Amino acid sequence: MGGRRRSFWGWGWEDRFPPREVRRSFGRQLGAMLGFAPTALGEPPRIDGVELANVRIDIPVPLADFLTVDPESRIRHTYGRAYPDIVRGFRGDFAPAPDLVGRPRNESEVVAALDWASDAKVAVIPYGGGTSVVGGVEPRVSRDFAATLSLDLRGLDRVLEVEPASLTARIQAGALGPALERDLARQDLTLRHFPQSFEFSTLGGWIATRAGGHFATVYTHIDDLVAAIRMVTPSGVLETRRLPASGAGPSPDRLVLGSEGALGVITEAWMRVRPRPTFRSTATCHFRDWGTAVAATRQLSQSGLFPSNCRLLDAREAMLHSVASDGSQVLIIGFESADHPLEAWMGRALDLVADHGGSCPGGPIHQAGDEPTANEAGAATWKSAFLEAPYLMNLLVSLGLIVDTFETACPWDGFEALHGDLLRNVHAAMSRECGGGFLSCRFTHVYPDGPAPYYTFIAPGRLGAELAQWRTVKKAASDTLISHGATITHHHGVGRTHLPWYEKQRPHLFAEVLRAAKQQLDPQGVLNPGVLLSEP
Amino acid sequence: MGGRRRSFWGWGWEDRFPPREVRRSFGRQLGAMLGFAPTALGEPPRIDGVELANVRIDIPVPLADFLTVDPESRIRHTYGRAYPDIVRGFRGDFAPAPDLVGRPRNESEVVAALDWASDAKVAVIPYGGGTSVVGGVEPRVSRDFAATLSLDLRGLDRVLEVEPASLTARIQAGALGPALERDLARQDLTLRHFPQSFEFSTLGGWIATRAGGHFATVYTHIDDLVAAIRMVTPSGVLETRRLPASGAGPSPDRLVLGSEGALGVITEAWMRVRPRPTFRSTATCHFRDWGTAVAATRQLSQSGLFPSNCRLLDAREAMLHSVASDGSQVLIIGFESADHPLEAWMGRALDLVADHGGSCPGGPIHQAGDEPTANEAGAATWKSAFLEAPYLMNLLVSLGLIVDTFETACPWDGFEALHGDLLRNVHAAMSRECGGGFLSCRFTHVYPDGPAPYYTFIAPGRLGAELAQWRTVKKAASDTLISHGATITHHHGVGRTHLPWYEKQRPHLFAEVLRAAKQQLDPQGVLNPGVLLSEP
Repeated sequence: MGGRRRSFWGWGWEDRFPPREVRRSFGRQLGAMLGFAPTALGEPPRIDGVELANVRIDIPVPLADFLTVDPESRIRHTYGRAYPDIVRGFRGDFAPAPDLVGRPRNESEVVAALDWASDAKVAVIPYGGGTSVVGGVEPRVSRDFAATLSLDLRGLDRVLEVEPASLTARIQAGALGPALERDLARQDLTLRHFPQSFEFSTLGGWIATRAGGHFATVYTHIDDLVAAIRMVTPSGVLETRRLPASGAGPSPDRLVLGSEGALGVITEAWMRVRPRPTFRSTATCHFRDWGTAVAATRQLSQSGLFPSNCRLLDAREAMLHSVASDGSQVLIIGFESADHPLEAWMGRALDLVADHGGSCPGGPIHQAGDEPTANEAGAATWKSAFLEAPYLMNLLVSLGLIVDTFETACPWDGFEALHGDLLRNVHAAMSRECGGGFLSCRFTHVYPDGPAPYYTFIAPGRLGAELAQWRTVKKAASDTLISHGATITHHHGVGRTHLPWYEKQRPHLFAEVLRAAKQQLDPQGVLNPGVLLSEP
Repeated sequence: MGGRRRSFWGWGWEDRFPPREVRRSFGRQLGAMLGFAPTALGEPPRIDGVELANVRIDIPVPLADFLTVDPESRIRHTYGRAYPDIVRGFRGDFAPAPDLVGRPRNESEVVAALDWASDAKVAVIPYGGGTSVVGGVEPRVSRDFAATLSLDLRGLDRVLEVEPASLTARIQAGALGPALERDLARQDLTLRHFPQSFEFSTLGGWIATRAGGHFATVYTHIDDLVAAIRMVTPSGVLETRRLPASGAGPSPDRLVLGSEGALGVITEAWMRVRPRPTFRSTATCHFRDWGTAVAATRQLSQSGLFPSNCRLLDAREAMLHSVASDGSQVLIIGFESADHPLEAWMGRALDLVADHGGSCPGGPIHQAGDEPTANEAGAATWKSAFLEAPYLMNLLVSLGLIVDTFETACPWDGFEALHGDLLRNVHAAMSRECGGGFLSCRFTHVYPDGPAPYYTFIAPGRLGAELAQWRTVKKAASDTLISHGATITHHHGVGRTHLPWYEKQRPHLFAEVLRAAKQQLDPQGVLNPGVLLSEP
């Protein structure tokens, strides 16, 4: 990977952005599929052309070893990787850039940074991989703060300890997905948490945002993989016991999970890992209509078979990802185990699919033996199509298209009405704002009591008006979720983008509790202001 | 059940307490098995002989419909059902009796009670089934309070709504196990949460104390079965959304789970229910030695087979429960499903047992078809031995024996050392205090990262000194748990009994957060004072 650079304005590696001619030709094909054409063919900005505001504060001498005002660092810590981030990045607009970037090399430096920031009233934005899609790492704070500091945790990147008998490992919060998997693979273990952002996101980020991972059932969220957490706050260190389970009062881990950098900086965690699977069964099933596909998926989710993959794509999603182009809805089922062959599990799942009129043209595929080593490439094998998806956003932004995803979870009994209203309201918003648009749906995770549907929308943008257009469509989607009693996010997090809807969803008294918790842990309110709680 | 009465001093139904001669004879047999003889043959108290302190407060007129100072009600709301509760009850000592008992018939009356109590500085002890084994419902509070009110929720006992497609049901918090199972059975559904106290404990109590239930793996705690909660607090009502999952900030449900009546009064919850199982496979496996039995159980817990039952009994426990008397350790494995036969699951589990040298003399038993209706008797079929266990405590108390259980969870890598120290330290305490004793262990629940071991101890008491003796043994056990990094409770809860050790286990900063949460929700601090947080 020597010398390979991440894009400063878009998703992933810089060298993955295709040349102009490739993008033009791709745009034509995509336009034919979507029914509307790209509206631009822009060129990415140059980093040396970016203008930044003046730094408002001096680096304190004791922290000079790990704080910087270097412009490139500031640019690279301005945004996450949501659509509005990439649009602004592509325009070369880095107005919210932090004054300072910190790269602590150990926990003491995190403590020192928080102490100084609390005294100096500097807003601290904890930064893991910078892949937030909800404005969670953008230093957009009120003028009450003297300055902003983006605190990049990637210097804390080691697997510190492994307890193979207990299948747990103590891992520093700044470890990126591929690095921690590489370390665990040395002991034939794996965390097996593969969010779409896997390659560029960190353990601490996953915990702070309650990331959703590889498993479609049972262990869906990182929450389920956490055995203990260590978090630095301006009031001291909060560390929980490594326990497989406990009934001793409300769970302290669950306060940290989803705290999004507003209550403290997670520095390490004991994680539940597992042996790498040696048995794998997969099947791709087709359904004529959406209703029966949903019914089959629901039954599978309630069967107790606990598939590791249970991904339902609607016909548009199947087309977009080149999984099917005949109008079928596609259900991808996967089982995996390090302990036993899975024929019985898959056999029952396919019976159940057949009972609902689904077919599995390729039959099930059973594999035994090691899967490719869990390094960057290997861990991503079956998910490669989805890992690639984020790169698509760079490309579509350059073509003037608006593209975003939103996701939720709701009870099965409310899904049909919610889905219908989402289709209506989001299409109506796209028609009104953009003259048309594309909307597709898949289930990323399923539970006995409801699915986690994930939507992708694409619409033609008007140069310079894209952000306003996007906001209107996003609002239509978010309003619909909240009015139907669904959650504003199943695993993307709240950040700054979802805050207004989260505030409607969250019980009023729980907001008061969170505010009181923040007052205890972060008395000066310097941690990620505007995230989780609106600034006072 | 017409006219059947609960014992006012001991566990369960009054008519289950055996006559003197039966107890004498049982005591002889037990003595032969344990190696020490009963030290007494006492007679239970009469309720009309119990003396109560004067009531310190007048019933406010607007609440007169559901508050009472009736002595029998006060007596029946004095204790939970821990060993010290039954000892004091058996002595006829009901000193901590509440001044008032409330039996609200709806949520408005709960609100009215909390409003009045907050104003009048009356301590409110939420009371479900009264089966706490950790002093959670005992009105033992400081003199700062004007009086104590035990608020019995059993008037809120209905299943309000069922959503079969989502397998969820809205249930009032005061519903007892058998009643809610009977209501759900009408739609062929079951909550399938069967703690040992099932017959006499309530949904609200389970949620408040993070009760452990039927399933040995995956859905072990009531936490996993909660889809939404409604809780009345002095500051208003906190109600969460019914969601299969969410990533929107820290989970509000998880603050309520384990709040033990100190943050509010749970009035209802949306619970995850399931179809009643139609396939069941069980096997009883024997192991020569404890170490290999533990290793086999560990491997099963890490296999991904997710047995619904995975209960390992050490040789003493197996003897005590008449499961084996040849010195074998016994592992009871069960699978159940409403969807599929379980031969493949059980087959792999038994291979794994055999790999560790275990045997299954009776072979696996596979059953298909309905199990007995889930009424009081039926739901308890396979657990009858354990449901009976609490009755044993009444009997042993009358025989002058000290008997109690304690339970925990710890990582697999720490179990052997913890277990060794527990055996040493608890036996040493029993020898010192009681001249000997019996200690057995079983695993009630298992996780990929560790077991939840459950211990039973029995020792000869000295009349009048039993509570001091018990405290010493309990302290030896609790100190050992905490010093080994284990949890003070896996599912019994904290209550007043475990508070000193819970305070050592709980991160200091999390205590501050809980205190701040209580200040928000219960500004006058009237809710279950001394539980979860020490009184200021």
